[in-house]
Amino acid sequence: MFSATTYLARRRRLCELVGEGLVLLPGHADSPRNFADNCYPFRQDSTFLYYFGLAQPDLVGLIDTDTGEAVIYGDELTIDHIVWMGDLPTIAERAASVGVDSVRPLAQLAQDLATGRSVHFLPPYRAHTRAQLQDWLGGEATVSVDLIKAVVAQRSIKSDEEIAEITRAVDISVDMHLAAMQMVRPGMKESEVAAEVERVAVAAGGGLSFAPIATINGQILHNHHHGNTVAEGDLFLLDAGAETEMGYAGDLSSTFPVSAHFTSRQKWIYELSLQAHEAAVAKLAPGVTNLEVHLAAARTIARGMKDLGLMRGDTEEAVAAGAHAMFFPCGVGHMMGLDVHDMENLGEEFVGYGGQAKSTQFGLKSLRLGRALEPGFVLTIEPGIYFIPQLMDRWRAEGLHHDFLDYDELDRWRDYGGIRNEEDYLITAEGARRLGKPKPMTVAEVEALRQE
Amino acid sequence: MFSATTYLARRRRLCELVGEGLVLLPGHADSPRNFADNCYPFRQDSTFLYYFGLAQPDLVGLIDTDTGEAVIYGDELTIDHIVWMGDLPTIAERAASVGVDSVRPLAQLAQDLATGRSVHFLPPYRAHTRAQLQDWLGGEATVSVDLIKAVVAQRSIKSDEEIAEITRAVDISVDMHLAAMQMVRPGMKESEVAAEVERVAVAAGGGLSFAPIATINGQILHNHHHGNTVAEGDLFLLDAGAETEMGYAGDLSSTFPVSAHFTSRQKWIYELSLQAHEAAVAKLAPGVTNLEVHLAAARTIARGMKDLGLMRGDTEEAVAAGAHAMFFPCGVGHMMGLDVHDMENLGEEFVGYGGQAKSTQFGLKSLRLGRALEPGFVLTIEPGIYFIPQLMDRWRAEGLHHDFLDYDELDRWRDYGGIRNEEDYLITAEGARRLGKPKPMTVAEVEALRQE
Repeated sequence: MFSATTYLARRRRLCELVGEGLVLLPGHADSPRNFADNCYPFRQDSTFLYYFGLAQPDLVGLIDTDTGEAVIYGDELTIDHIVWMGDLPTIAERAASVGVDSVRPLAQLAQDLATGRSVHFLPPYRAHTRAQLQDWLGGEATVSVDLIKAVVAQRSIKSDEEIAEITRAVDISVDMHLAAMQMVRPGMKESEVAAEVERVAVAAGGGLSFAPIATINGQILHNHHHGNTVAEGDLFLLDAGAETEMGYAGDLSSTFPVSAHFTSRQKWIYELSLQAHEAAVAKLAPGVTNLEVHLAAARTIARGMKDLGLMRGDTEEAVAAGAHAMFFPCGVGHMMGLDVHDMENLGEEFVGYGGQAKSTQFGLKSLRLGRALEPGFVLTIEPGIYFIPQLMDRWRAEGLHHDFLDYDELDRWRDYGGIRNEEDYLITAEGARRLGKPKPMTVAEVEALRQE
Repeated sequence: MFSATTYLARRRRLCELVGEGLVLLPGHADSPRNFADNCYPFRQDSTFLYYFGLAQPDLVGLIDTDTGEAVIYGDELTIDHIVWMGDLPTIAERAASVGVDSVRPLAQLAQDLATGRSVHFLPPYRAHTRAQLQDWLGGEATVSVDLIKAVVAQRSIKSDEEIAEITRAVDISVDMHLAAMQMVRPGMKESEVAAEVERVAVAAGGGLSFAPIATINGQILHNHHHGNTVAEGDLFLLDAGAETEMGYAGDLSSTFPVSAHFTSRQKWIYELSLQAHEAAVAKLAPGVTNLEVHLAAARTIARGMKDLGLMRGDTEEAVAAGAHAMFFPCGVGHMMGLDVHDMENLGEEFVGYGGQAKSTQFGLKSLRLGRALEPGFVLTIEPGIYFIPQLMDRWRAEGLHHDFLDYDELDRWRDYGGIRNEEDYLITAEGARRLGKPKPMTVAEVEALRQE
């Protein structure tokens, strides 16, 4: 937790930005797994964490924008609980530690909201929160765009203490990737690698920032299956990050050979993906849009695919038409902070596009962040190259992009898989800097680690 | 997954037991963590798993008890999904694998329920399921006690194939405990041990059956904090179990010294806890109530505490009064199966007490299972001995059990901690047998492992 000063300042600024009414920030309840008392590990709502810092269930924050006063609603433990749970700080003590003097029972909240003043709340994403809002405010209440814009404005610019915490998350994430890159051997199950990656995150005191991808099928982008046995010649793709105890995320990807060396075909595409990565990183600077960063990677990939004979025609035209999205169907990166896709629950149009519309073109429609970069933004850079048989078949059947893609040649790459590397960057006044310690990226660095 | 025959037979029997109407079994949706698309690892509802075996989100089962016909409601993936997720079996294919021929879109369910026939459903424990039931059935619908009783009757008696799967879960759980018992050294964080325990479970292809307790404060029974550093002289208590990919649970506890050897005081209480454990196990047989099993452990603990000078008076009277619950405030064990506390969401009165009322005495009120044991029951045996300062202070202040407890003597044990061992047993026609491979239990066995 940061100091009370931090939370007081954040809430004060929020009051200025929202300007009027009450701001209602419900914290999370425990999330039942297979029965009410067998819950998933508790995760607090990130916006509640940002303004109140407390990671206990069943708390609600209310801020009066006129007075700047904040109240935490919650029910103190009874003596029965204390026998089972030991001596814990009271809610009043916890609240004081984040600069909140006023604590009231949860049952009083509905009454305190019924003052006739406007109540600002964010889009709920858990069924429990939706039911709470219904109980407190009735079904007619609508989310507050003013509050969304204010929260996005604040959370988008990371403070020095946040950057230090994100750096910790990235450092742990690097350790997770190093462990995986060192351990993988033919005959192992993907689940053994996923398990070791998770061990490193949990041992550091926090956990995973998202369900990891640990797979020999890198071409399947939404893939959390870990049941395959890895074999000589496979490429292993790991996308995994740590979350610190405070809730800040790291997010890295690595691709490495299961054998001691890349094959020449693996190496060729791998190095092209690194070139795309470097092209994207070279663009990072305040004022540059992340759409431009994305397109820099896209052009690099398209040029490489032309060299390889898989694409043809004018590179600019191919990228404008979206033909490169055969290989790079997703975005170059996304905001990262208290959420691995930071503030995704607040709406991509506000977080990633400043209220503007996003392209609907295949590929670009998966770019979560397109707006102009600002100092203090933290984002991931993760262009990838994927050979997706289902996409080849679909586009070919639909007659798409025949001017730019050689489908016969593509057919020889159906079983290639997918490659991605990912790092996390901070936009600075001058440009950008990578957060956390370096992760092996070049063929030589990766192969050196596979020898040990 | 078991064969289609298994699920067909279970559903057929359910129809006989319920007798009339429609049985509605909603499967789970994904459970959002910090935004809608960042979900906890998916866990299917156990009763859905029992009758339909499918561990994918957003499926609902409906069984017509007159015809025995079952329908699975769910929406097939679109081609857009397949590009991102690869080729996966359709819902129709998955349904066929568990003997269900009929698959319909989720949107049709509400209409199919509005036939005027009674709709049986179980108590919901997730907010998402509560909202679904409200949408499908309106707010007036009530849970079906007939369905609860039928499900409890079936799920309480484990089949041979279930016992084999539970045994797998216990074997993995033993590996988790062996790993912890071998690794703990002074200076480590509790979280490092918790992380390694989780690694073993995840590497085996499933995961944890519940959030583990891995602590040097064994006296805090509801304790999922792993932030302490372990030191020479501490006792480490681990309560953790694996869940197999099919969803079956193991649940074991171990207590071991952080130093190479138990101190004499640690050893004395440890061996008393083993005697209580053995007394409980010796009772296990069909027809014996688990309340008798619990009381056998309680009497053993009370007798030991008299030898130690912490208790006094007549043992039977002390146990009848509940004075032993100072040390043993919880139950001797619980049902285990697809849930670590099997069927807890169906209501303890049905699962553990056959519809009878449970004792309200402190200690006994925490015994989840009191009814007569039957062949096929799987349950945990986990008597423990805890020194809980908050409970000492509370009872002393309330003037409780002064005839049976020497509070001045007790005060010298305030910092002792807590001890528990736990194994999993199957009730057989003749008595009971332990499931899974043996776990080190005696002082000699545990210390031998601490030397390696």
